[in-house]
Amino acid sequence: MSEEIVPPVRPPRRILMGPGPSDISPRVLAAMAAPTVGHLDPYFLKIMDELQQMLRQVFRTENRLTLAISGTGSDGMEACVFNLIEPGDKMLVCVNGVFGGRMAEVGRRAGAEVVTIEKPFGEIFTTTEVEAALKEHQPKVVGIVHAETSTGALQPLHHIAKLVHKYDALILADMVTSLGGLPVEIDEWGIDAAYSGTQKCLSCPPGLAPVTFSPRSVEVMDKRKEPVRSWYVDLSLIRNYWGGNRAYHHTAPINMNYGLHEALRNVLEEGLEARFERHQLNHKALKAGLSAIGIEYAVEEENSLPMLNAVKIPEGIDDKKVRAQLLNQFGIEIGAGLGPMAGKTWRIGLMGEASRESNVLLFLATLEQCLPKQGYELTPGASIAAANKVYAG
Amino acid sequence: MSEEIVPPVRPPRRILMGPGPSDISPRVLAAMAAPTVGHLDPYFLKIMDELQQMLRQVFRTENRLTLAISGTGSDGMEACVFNLIEPGDKMLVCVNGVFGGRMAEVGRRAGAEVVTIEKPFGEIFTTTEVEAALKEHQPKVVGIVHAETSTGALQPLHHIAKLVHKYDALILADMVTSLGGLPVEIDEWGIDAAYSGTQKCLSCPPGLAPVTFSPRSVEVMDKRKEPVRSWYVDLSLIRNYWGGNRAYHHTAPINMNYGLHEALRNVLEEGLEARFERHQLNHKALKAGLSAIGIEYAVEEENSLPMLNAVKIPEGIDDKKVRAQLLNQFGIEIGAGLGPMAGKTWRIGLMGEASRESNVLLFLATLEQCLPKQGYELTPGASIAAANKVYAG
Repeated sequence: MSEEIVPPVRPPRRILMGPGPSDISPRVLAAMAAPTVGHLDPYFLKIMDELQQMLRQVFRTENRLTLAISGTGSDGMEACVFNLIEPGDKMLVCVNGVFGGRMAEVGRRAGAEVVTIEKPFGEIFTTTEVEAALKEHQPKVVGIVHAETSTGALQPLHHIAKLVHKYDALILADMVTSLGGLPVEIDEWGIDAAYSGTQKCLSCPPGLAPVTFSPRSVEVMDKRKEPVRSWYVDLSLIRNYWGGNRAYHHTAPINMNYGLHEALRNVLEEGLEARFERHQLNHKALKAGLSAIGIEYAVEEENSLPMLNAVKIPEGIDDKKVRAQLLNQFGIEIGAGLGPMAGKTWRIGLMGEASRESNVLLFLATLEQCLPKQGYELTPGASIAAANKVYAG
Repeated sequence: MSEEIVPPVRPPRRILMGPGPSDISPRVLAAMAAPTVGHLDPYFLKIMDELQQMLRQVFRTENRLTLAISGTGSDGMEACVFNLIEPGDKMLVCVNGVFGGRMAEVGRRAGAEVVTIEKPFGEIFTTTEVEAALKEHQPKVVGIVHAETSTGALQPLHHIAKLVHKYDALILADMVTSLGGLPVEIDEWGIDAAYSGTQKCLSCPPGLAPVTFSPRSVEVMDKRKEPVRSWYVDLSLIRNYWGGNRAYHHTAPINMNYGLHEALRNVLEEGLEARFERHQLNHKALKAGLSAIGIEYAVEEENSLPMLNAVKIPEGIDDKKVRAQLLNQFGIEIGAGLGPMAGKTWRIGLMGEASRESNVLLFLATLEQCLPKQGYELTPGASIAAANKVYAG
């Protein structure tokens, strides 16, 4: 070719403290580069079995139908909604952020008659609110977000799941940001279907969507009258490949699955409880540090996600300038606000590998350069002192 | 965790001579392991621009809407069908293999009124046959497979595309197996939409689906009355992220895109014409070698795909035993027959990095062990001699 060829990929070194992707461990990156084998190779089938086993441990479920969809978290959302919904079914979606809104939209694409209940971004739903809607609408499926990545709010699910079952509906939960970072109890809570992503607290590059379905969900899927609207995420076909007769469906993303395998090994090696504690500790230290320099959270502490810290941008501070300085000078990525929170909040991710003491301290230290540059007054060292006090216990 | 953790990924060394994934160059594997950056990082946006530019070169098109869908080739199929079809639209699909059949099924899932014309597996369509169907059915979209991975047949598209336009329809082509291995001329032939996969002649791990859409296709998409049935592959949203205002849609599989970037650099560095010639040469040498020991192709030579050699399994030979011996003793993967060709053919892939002289010679040499073991008589050395004669020119 006479045309010039672009230079090879040489990414800058980043510290990924945004809403995902999070920092990836070198072990996971190395696994991504392991030699590709065929999608029906006995070795790969073994890897798939191990992935299912590890995903069940992380989701804390015995669900047989637990696997990784060959797309990102949003494709996992689509897989769950499309397989549970048939055109005309009533679906209730609880919307208190961008991802609840997305689930409602996906429900409409699936042909559901979608009804929503809404709360302001950052707030969560009470059982009373959900029960009123269940009574009024008698939905087949209730969609709700466990950890709203757009707002930083944590929605308790245990009591809501019980209610949903009382009204003979299925509960579908978005666990994209929670899985691997805070307790997820599929079986104990009675969640009927859930999806996640690889790039949040599992600290694997984006590209796969762990999903799990309760026997009750599978029963509903088995009784469908119409085929699933998407062939690509049709679980009646996919589940033969992930078990059963290993019938070819699509060519699985081999190396992505290698990456997820190593990421799950990391999670289990650390232990789920230790991992949850680490996420809590670093969240507390960050919060103490930010409080010490007058930066407030956008969400009440009791509903705050430890891995996604949505904080109010102080009055007079230029959102973009600060994020650009963090990125260009320090290689630190934090997230902008989404939807109505755009320009008003920063989303500071402490997810998986990124949830570490050194990231908290470094980030607080960099703010001491960035904020005063824009006229914000703070006591030098105060945030670091406050964070270190938390670490000192 | 008290439970034992599974051992890390340590794939056996394979030579991937099946229907894909194909052998991956170490350069691509290394790129897959480059540090992950954010999906809105200026660096990643640059990588996306370069990917679009390189994909246009490989597809030989000026189409602005050329990008990689965040799923495997089948998701690319779904993206093309779902974006072009609205419920009730008539879609004509030419079915002469598994992937034509799949496209018809995806059309039905999209709500199309699908009509098919069919040919036996391994045969191709004439312009007369397609014109008769166009006249009778007046479809909005004609789906056809350029390189049928299930049969090894090559379908010429140039004249058919002209006909499709004469009848005011759009032509959608499956180029999963052809892209990067034999001439693909989107603009010169007048293809309105096409999808491919990364794991065939581009020699990148599976996980992304390059797609391209002509301005005429984009016009049809812009005039849709109903939203696309799948939110995940809705190009009216995705194209804002791959250009436009960079609006967040889903979190792109960063490292998969790194891999594709390096794979496309490999393709352009070699040059498309040189690459096509290499695929032809290795196909000819393999064919000469197989002929010398009495193994016949399932497809006429003039319609044979160079990268996917579908050959008849000799009478009395146990398909599975041979493939198992090749895999276990030599680490060589070849493909089984699909659909009606199951048990009757082998599919020997010489795709991308796997299309190399050493693979052809090694494979022929291994057959000299495998076949006589099952009572097949052959002249030792005959296949190697015949192949080397081709290489000698």
